[in-house]
Amino acid sequence: MLNFSKSFKLKNQMTAYQSLSKSQLLNIRDQLDKKIEEIRKQQLSLDMTRGKPSEAQLDLSLPMLKVVGADNYTAKGNVDCRNYGGLDGISEAKEFFAQYLGVTDQQIIIGGNASLNMMHDAMSISMLHGTTDGGPWVNEAEINFLCPVPGYDRHFAICEHLGIKMIPVAMTEHGPEMDRVEALVKDDQTIKGIWCVPKYSNPTGICYSDEIVERMASMTAAAKDFRIFWDDAYRVHHLGHKIADVAHILDACKRVGNEDRAYIFGSTSKLTFPGSGVAMMAGSENNMAFFRKHLAYQTIGPDKLNQLRHVLFLKDKAGLMDHMEKHAVLLKARFDAVQEVLADHLSGKAIAHWSKPEGGYFIDLDALPGTAREIVAMAAHLGVKLTPAGATFPYGNDPEDKNIRIAPSFPTVNEVSKATEVLCVCLEKVSINQYLKSADH
Amino acid sequence: MLNFSKSFKLKNQMTAYQSLSKSQLLNIRDQLDKKIEEIRKQQLSLDMTRGKPSEAQLDLSLPMLKVVGADNYTAKGNVDCRNYGGLDGISEAKEFFAQYLGVTDQQIIIGGNASLNMMHDAMSISMLHGTTDGGPWVNEAEINFLCPVPGYDRHFAICEHLGIKMIPVAMTEHGPEMDRVEALVKDDQTIKGIWCVPKYSNPTGICYSDEIVERMASMTAAAKDFRIFWDDAYRVHHLGHKIADVAHILDACKRVGNEDRAYIFGSTSKLTFPGSGVAMMAGSENNMAFFRKHLAYQTIGPDKLNQLRHVLFLKDKAGLMDHMEKHAVLLKARFDAVQEVLADHLSGKAIAHWSKPEGGYFIDLDALPGTAREIVAMAAHLGVKLTPAGATFPYGNDPEDKNIRIAPSFPTVNEVSKATEVLCVCLEKVSINQYLKSADH
Repeated sequence: MLNFSKSFKLKNQMTAYQSLSKSQLLNIRDQLDKKIEEIRKQQLSLDMTRGKPSEAQLDLSLPMLKVVGADNYTAKGNVDCRNYGGLDGISEAKEFFAQYLGVTDQQIIIGGNASLNMMHDAMSISMLHGTTDGGPWVNEAEINFLCPVPGYDRHFAICEHLGIKMIPVAMTEHGPEMDRVEALVKDDQTIKGIWCVPKYSNPTGICYSDEIVERMASMTAAAKDFRIFWDDAYRVHHLGHKIADVAHILDACKRVGNEDRAYIFGSTSKLTFPGSGVAMMAGSENNMAFFRKHLAYQTIGPDKLNQLRHVLFLKDKAGLMDHMEKHAVLLKARFDAVQEVLADHLSGKAIAHWSKPEGGYFIDLDALPGTAREIVAMAAHLGVKLTPAGATFPYGNDPEDKNIRIAPSFPTVNEVSKATEVLCVCLEKVSINQYLKSADH
Repeated sequence: MLNFSKSFKLKNQMTAYQSLSKSQLLNIRDQLDKKIEEIRKQQLSLDMTRGKPSEAQLDLSLPMLKVVGADNYTAKGNVDCRNYGGLDGISEAKEFFAQYLGVTDQQIIIGGNASLNMMHDAMSISMLHGTTDGGPWVNEAEINFLCPVPGYDRHFAICEHLGIKMIPVAMTEHGPEMDRVEALVKDDQTIKGIWCVPKYSNPTGICYSDEIVERMASMTAAAKDFRIFWDDAYRVHHLGHKIADVAHILDACKRVGNEDRAYIFGSTSKLTFPGSGVAMMAGSENNMAFFRKHLAYQTIGPDKLNQLRHVLFLKDKAGLMDHMEKHAVLLKARFDAVQEVLADHLSGKAIAHWSKPEGGYFIDLDALPGTAREIVAMAAHLGVKLTPAGATFPYGNDPEDKNIRIAPSFPTVNEVSKATEVLCVCLEKVSINQYLKSADH
């Protein structure tokens, strides 16, 4: 579904596998089989399934564990962070993360350790209690959500779990295909929202253009309670170049009088510790007042000590940027390793194209249609785990069976190279089989 | 509604206010007015609204902030607690808190910082997805819950928020009035559950007898998906004597083939830090498998570093018991102060009776019917905040307007004495006014 044609020109059209003869293909397959036998003997056990930071990245935040202690547990306003209270977070965390997300203190709620939890809760609250613009979604006969594809499996899982039907929308290089989004949303009241990862998108790595953000904010929606779930997960997660600019959805919504349309989510999962981070939700003051009201039934307050820990450790914008530079160095080495191996093995063969993201946690690869499942299964047999084929589509169903998500952050650089090599070998072999099969018919 | 008659005999029936003449009452009221004037001049600002641990209690757990650090972040099975994963908690936390709650590792889920959140989620999941014994509660025309009264306002709030109707059931000295519970539950399929605080109950302080636990587990329920929400919040929270024994609800349920009936909740909010504790939910393996399945859509995992912190700090059962002894010393001083002042001011006057709990966080006081709101309001005017009258009943409606919850844990001992004195003076004055009014009619 992705259109990489413009950005990923083939280096050497002459060696494209589709132009090779059957005997040439069989010859290459023999060589691949030898490689596969070698790989099998190595009994690999490598994992590129998830966007998990590496140990080296986690080590960057170890000093954070020391900043709160017996002499340091008090937040602004003489708040004892050890005790109950503070429904939507401590003042300094609201200030820090409001600046991080580009909103005001009144437009943010600081939560627990998982933005996924806040997204799920926002959806669950919409189901049971509705929004500021309408009643509970459970009362409606059908609820639909737009899902740009390929996208994030955990977003799709929330919808599936809650019985919200998903409508896939293709991604372009600049964001979701807005003509289709606008056409769908304009007349269909059952379409209540859309999932977006606006910067360094999971898995495509693309950044939404200003035009896309503008159209998303201003489009006419038949559902008054239409909501954009704006998962700003990779806001400062660049790969060693400058951080990409994406227009601010809340500002865009406000300008056109749709201030309540967008819910923004963020977290420090990939700034500090994925398991012990701080999550946040932002939106219009009206929306945030609505969520605070509901939150009061769910909890007395979040873990304030951990919020204090984060603010004391990250300090300020400069501190955050410094910290992210260190992440970028570690991540870039791994992303470069993938790019190098992919280029070495696959360039010019016209059997795959892949993204060259400038941030985020993934490289997105499209193989030949009808091959992704087999490639991922073959790699697994050789000891290299990849994200399950199809996971990047609603219901795990990639209609073309071609999309593969590469998540290189966790292994070491050498492991990443090795794992990518295995992926390439599998991809080549399955692609050749595909060509041979179609040649036979 | 509470029947304290057996346990709280009046010391001196002779001076009961109801037997005094109008002039005697007026004379006492004059003295009270003088006291009130003195109190007003002191411009007090005391807070006995919530079961909040005192600073001295929080200080007991300060060493916990040091046990996890740059050299100590790994849990059993070589789990890096900093990273993603571990949906239902780290092994050592499951072991520790399984022992704490008297269940197996398979029967427990370790969550975030608030058991209230787990209770809310369990209820929210029941609404949207149902239970192992039936479909979503939102699909039913009416859902009712039994609420022993007086009880915990945040339990009631969850029901009210979700549109679950509440049916109050009186508490006896040994637990909810089971004849009524059984009669209600037997034929009414809309009654889906009951809230219970089985030990040192909030606010009455009573402990469920073995018979009550047995009947709760074995009673016939018309609703196949009837659930006991068993909030074991004060499991080891005694006041300096031995810890009370309450029969194990899960064992009782299992014995009679109702293993899936009870959900148990607990937390370390009053063991370590209320804001940064560890919450847990327990139940049959069947129920826990059900909740793990749902949890997987909500989060990638809880804060494992904080779980590790707790286990390393509390160490083992002996460590926990030692720690709770220290809490008990601090709490007992405050509870004793309340008891002393109440006895000094109110004994023998037949205008109030109150609990003498051996654990938990509250003293429960019943004033004359029709006076609680006025007493609490008067105390507030004098700078002493108490839990709002009515809060211990569903919809904030105490039909007899007599129940007052005293939460003495947070202030210092002197403040507790002073605040209780103010409460007594207000109670006396309002009671006398009540008698004078009825004498006038």
